[in-house]
Amino acid sequence: MEGKMKAIVKNNAGPGAELMDVDIPTPGPGQVLIKVKSTSICGSDLHIYKWNNWAEKNVKLPQIMGHEVAGKVIALGENVKSVKEGDFVSAETHIPCGHCYQCKTGNRHICENMKILGVHTDGVFAEYAILEEVDVWHNDPSIPAESASIQEPLGNAIDTIRAGDVTGKEILITGAGPVGLLAVGVARAFGATKIIVSEPNEYRRKIAKKMGADLTLDPINEDLLSLVIKNTDGRGVDFTAEMSGNKNAIQQGLKSVRPGGSMALLGLPDDPISIDLTQDLIFKAVNLIGITGREMFKTWYIAGRLLKENRLNLSPVITHTFPLADFEKGMKLMEEGNCGKIILKP
Amino acid sequence: MEGKMKAIVKNNAGPGAELMDVDIPTPGPGQVLIKVKSTSICGSDLHIYKWNNWAEKNVKLPQIMGHEVAGKVIALGENVKSVKEGDFVSAETHIPCGHCYQCKTGNRHICENMKILGVHTDGVFAEYAILEEVDVWHNDPSIPAESASIQEPLGNAIDTIRAGDVTGKEILITGAGPVGLLAVGVARAFGATKIIVSEPNEYRRKIAKKMGADLTLDPINEDLLSLVIKNTDGRGVDFTAEMSGNKNAIQQGLKSVRPGGSMALLGLPDDPISIDLTQDLIFKAVNLIGITGREMFKTWYIAGRLLKENRLNLSPVITHTFPLADFEKGMKLMEEGNCGKIILKP
Amino acid sequence: MEGKMKAIVKNNAGPGAELMDVDIPTPGPGQVLIKVKSTSICGSDLHIYKWNNWAEKNVKLPQIMGHEVAGKVIALGENVKSVKEGDFVSAETHIPCGHCYQCKTGNRHICENMKILGVHTDGVFAEYAILEEVDVWHNDPSIPAESASIQEPLGNAIDTIRAGDVTGKEILITGAGPVGLLAVGVARAFGATKIIVSEPNEYRRKIAKKMGADLTLDPINEDLLSLVIKNTDGRGVDFTAEMSGNKNAIQQGLKSVRPGGSMALLGLPDDPISIDLTQDLIFKAVNLIGITGREMFKTWYIAGRLLKENRLNLSPVITHTFPLADFEKGMKLMEEGNCGKIILKP
Amino acid sequence: MEGKMKAIVKNNAGPGAELMDVDIPTPGPGQVLIKVKSTSICGSDLHIYKWNNWAEKNVKLPQIMGHEVAGKVIALGENVKSVKEGDFVSAETHIPCGHCYQCKTGNRHICENMKILGVHTDGVFAEYAILEEVDVWHNDPSIPAESASIQEPLGNAIDTIRAGDVTGKEILITGAGPVGLLAVGVARAFGATKIIVSEPNEYRRKIAKKMGADLTLDPINEDLLSLVIKNTDGRGVDFTAEMSGNKNAIQQGLKSVRPGGSMALLGLPDDPISIDLTQDLIFKAVNLIGITGREMFKTWYIAGRLLKENRLNLSPVITHTFPLADFEKGMKLMEEGNCGKIILKP
Repeated sequence: MEGKMKAIVKNNAGPGAELMDVDIPTPGPGQVLIKVKSTSICGSDLHIYKWNNWAEKNVKLPQIMGHEVAGKVIALGENVKSVKEGDFVSAETHIPCGHCYQCKTGNRHICENMKILGVHTDGVFAEYAILEEVDVWHNDPSIPAESASIQEPLGNAIDTIRAGDVTGKEILITGAGPVGLLAVGVARAFGATKIIVSEPNEYRRKIAKKMGADLTLDPINEDLLSLVIKNTDGRGVDFTAEMSGNKNAIQQGLKSVRPGGSMALLGLPDDPISIDLTQDLIFKAVNLIGITGREMFKTWYIAGRLLKENRLNLSPVITHTFPLADFEKGMKLMEEGNCGKIILKP
Repeated sequence: MEGKMKAIVKNNAGPGAELMDVDIPTPGPGQVLIKVKSTSICGSDLHIYKWNNWAEKNVKLPQIMGHEVAGKVIALGENVKSVKEGDFVSAETHIPCGHCYQCKTGNRHICENMKILGVHTDGVFAEYAILEEVDVWHNDPSIPAESASIQEPLGNAIDTIRAGDVTGKEILITGAGPVGLLAVGVARAFGATKIIVSEPNEYRRKIAKKMGADLTLDPINEDLLSLVIKNTDGRGVDFTAEMSGNKNAIQQGLKSVRPGGSMALLGLPDDPISIDLTQDLIFKAVNLIGITGREMFKTWYIAGRLLKENRLNLSPVITHTFPLADFEKGMKLMEEGNCGKIILKP
Repeated sequence: MEGKMKAIVKNNAGPGAELMDVDIPTPGPGQVLIKVKSTSICGSDLHIYKWNNWAEKNVKLPQIMGHEVAGKVIALGENVKSVKEGDFVSAETHIPCGHCYQCKTGNRHICENMKILGVHTDGVFAEYAILEEVDVWHNDPSIPAESASIQEPLGNAIDTIRAGDVTGKEILITGAGPVGLLAVGVARAFGATKIIVSEPNEYRRKIAKKMGADLTLDPINEDLLSLVIKNTDGRGVDFTAEMSGNKNAIQQGLKSVRPGGSMALLGLPDDPISIDLTQDLIFKAVNLIGITGREMFKTWYIAGRLLKENRLNLSPVITHTFPLADFEKGMKLMEEGNCGKIILKP
Repeated sequence: MEGKMKAIVKNNAGPGAELMDVDIPTPGPGQVLIKVKSTSICGSDLHIYKWNNWAEKNVKLPQIMGHEVAGKVIALGENVKSVKEGDFVSAETHIPCGHCYQCKTGNRHICENMKILGVHTDGVFAEYAILEEVDVWHNDPSIPAESASIQEPLGNAIDTIRAGDVTGKEILITGAGPVGLLAVGVARAFGATKIIVSEPNEYRRKIAKKMGADLTLDPINEDLLSLVIKNTDGRGVDFTAEMSGNKNAIQQGLKSVRPGGSMALLGLPDDPISIDLTQDLIFKAVNLIGITGREMFKTWYIAGRLLKENRLNLSPVITHTFPLADFEKGMKLMEEGNCGKIILKP
């Protein structure tokens, strides 16, 4: 398809990005072109926008930003077999090589040669975008584009909560940013019988309540560990889902786990963290589980069914919707923290 | 404690039972005496009442019937450490030996020397009853005695549904007798995204809907397999929970499972059943899982939390409540099938 | 590559096959051409040779037979990324679609649109053969071509034995045909502490002993169940691996499993089989596990490492080696049963 | 039984212990008296002998030391049902309460009210010793008493190696003290295809080779991480078993794990340790598994079968045998490190 489109482009190695007119891209072999219906902002978009160390190492300029998306397929490259024009799709954002040890053993989400949409390739903050066929996810038509766009981070939340086998369990979620809030809803949908949420931001604690938290606490002004112990018959939680990357959350979250329990880590701490392995992990026979990305595509099937069958209401998490042109408002809100998920619409 | 109590006693090797005055029993070492608050009728009680082959082989007469119970501890035998007078308790009904291979490896529910409360020992359809300390379960005071009594069959339902890892899954439940109905509620609480229930009795199909079934069907007048396929994108369900023991339900339920799925069997067929292992199990890489009793005590913790935290509403399943003296009305209703769970109160 | 090659071709809808000169094929996009070093005969080759019902339904004539293979890559089609000329490779024989539910969730071996090498496409009983890139497995150069060729059925054995988590376990293997014999060696390598093998053919029982069986028995002249019980402290085995498809083996093999144990089925019975689900599966809380094909590619990594590190000696199983031209001798031996694995060499 | 016996008694809050004459104890209800055939020295015995902080907090004086044992039952207390005089037994050393959450859910080895034989009760470095019935393990008569005594630490090794599902895997074991050496043998018996052992002591590295290590390295003079990477196709090991408690071993051992792999920790570090969770755990989707004690009694069944069926040869690990009176030689050797397992015989 020829012509120009609006896109948010990262042009310079420094803070900021620009809304520009660029060429509409053409899908190559094994690729499809979509017309973007909805996108949403991820924490990593903010890192690229602000140009932190991680961004500097990983992103080649210039590049279109964004990776959370829902849209309609409008053109197919060669050799595409499982997608057709008009399909309503979202995108897995891992682009696996397909041939490494991980890809060959069912772990494409930790591919040894991984590329990420919007990090290593042009992204989706635009009117049109290219997706790899292997990353195309077909949405049920009943799902709103805004929700469909959020399925990617919802998958992170699902993978994290699944690690805890939370049905009938008492759990702690540390950090109620957008993915943490999704995790609260997922844990509720999966049958956790008690969900305690630790989050310093009051705005987000309130959303956590709406998503199904039984108890929320402020770890700055309240004692996380003693509150957990008090609310779990003195035993500690069965499972902690760590969604913040915060040092205290990690240390206190691990101490909050009962003997024989487990803890999953999705939030990324900036620095190494000191852990009392003897007392907090070994003597308690606790499992500490690293979570990255989303299992392809088990989590997508679960996400799709939760949304299609209305088992999970995402509306409390979607706090703001902006036109693409106002992306800087979204970035600012993300940085301040008084938001859930922010939608950008072309 | 001295004195007499009312009890439903099986005296004769034939149909029927009698409400009689018998001595209040005295707890021996490792036993406790409870004042019964609520009991409920199980299918096996009906077998004993009607005196089928299984009953004839297993029950020594005379014997007090019943095993589902909730009550208050009023006396302790010697060496009881974990129970005290006044405790509000229910009873696990497996009485494991504690020393066999199964007991030593965490599978007490399939003890090689198992006894069952109310089958091999005097039961709980009485004003007072003896429990083994190892079988005592402490209830949260907020749980009604009627619900507390039903936790034992609820545990069967939980074990069956847990076998399917149903979160985010599409499942079939064949048979909506009392335990099947509990299984519907459990599957809903555990996050199954689609629950199809097959049950010939209309009264029970209606309760299944109240417990959370998305679709109910009548396997006598509708085609089970084609309805399942139609409602699962042509693929079949992820999991079938077989709660009826019926031959057609077992055969059709297995055919309804998608490749890579699984099926748990709790219902007990009277006779061997012909299975097309090549097509229905091997080529599909399906697991067929035998379920018996309840894992001690994982299922109890889950049951207790579901009830305490109001994640599961048992009231649609509890269709009738009778005084102990009217037990024959209960047995008759159980036989006819127009009931859910029937409570007997001393 | 132009020219002619020798190949075993199934030309007619009836018993038999012919060694013919045919064109050397040209690899299409995503395909590679190999020079065949070694092939081996599978039971399904015999079915095609004899033209049973299954063959009639699945095979389109004319077609080159065979699917177990090792060889050297000599030409690449377009878009092949992970293979280069000169590579020493074997072939996974499932050709998955890559886009169905099973393929998208890590179960390519039960793809909903599966094709099989040598069944739905031209096979490897030839001097040259075409492989799909997705099916190419890179062999360590130290592995003999004969062993490399057998890795495909070895994968079936590995998948079956893995299902039983046999380390430190006492197990029964029913059926010591070529895959059953491989299963004995795999179970030994995986740390099973007692391996009982049931097999009517004395020639094969002797090989089973060489592969590591602790006890072999003849189910025609000895009582399988009582021998198992006698040799397992009266308890039954932890796991039965059923490799025969025989009705009695299936029924007795299931009765041989202890409470809480499991049984995997790889052998394909011709007809439905009557199972006493109540006594043999439900009351014992036993799992019955259908096995088909090989998990792609977990089993290949295990197979490759066992061979490379000399943890598994395949030589007792490789009983005959013929030139391609003598394939009819191999088919006859396979039918009679006095053989292990039969190698065909171009 | 009346009379006096020799026993190694810890009398004073400081280094050392004494061989004394004390009364032969009398078994209480649920206890048995054994005549000790063999005992062995554990690292925790050395801690008590040297009186470190942990010992000071946990041990009440005076107390008989030791917990690894094999012997013959010579007297029974009341209510003992599963043991009889003359039985050849060993001892699980966890004494669980039986009533807490962990005990009720199959995790007696992490009982919330745990006592340890020889730490919280009189131990087995004596001519006679008291065991709780719940802790009695029946040995096969064919197993030598020295090996039977070592089954307790062998269980630690089994639990650690089982956590890694090592069959067909490439693994690293950091630390080849007595339990690390047992872990090497266990990993070999369980079908690990490559076992790399890191251990600074040359004497122990040599024993590791005898137990089945494919490669041993000296982490002081060689670069652990680069050697692991070099020997695992550049990918890292599937599993690390950490048996040393050493800070560098933990940090390097975790970095040595491939994406999607896991690491079990049995060795107890003295202090909290800094972990790069983002790079080493989260991005790699690695599991870190705390191991304590031995699962009761799954590991014992495995240990017993490995020894009975001669799948595991313990003789390279048993480096020294002393009479009870020479226990100080044993303690000295343990401290220096030029030993494997040290046997003490009354």
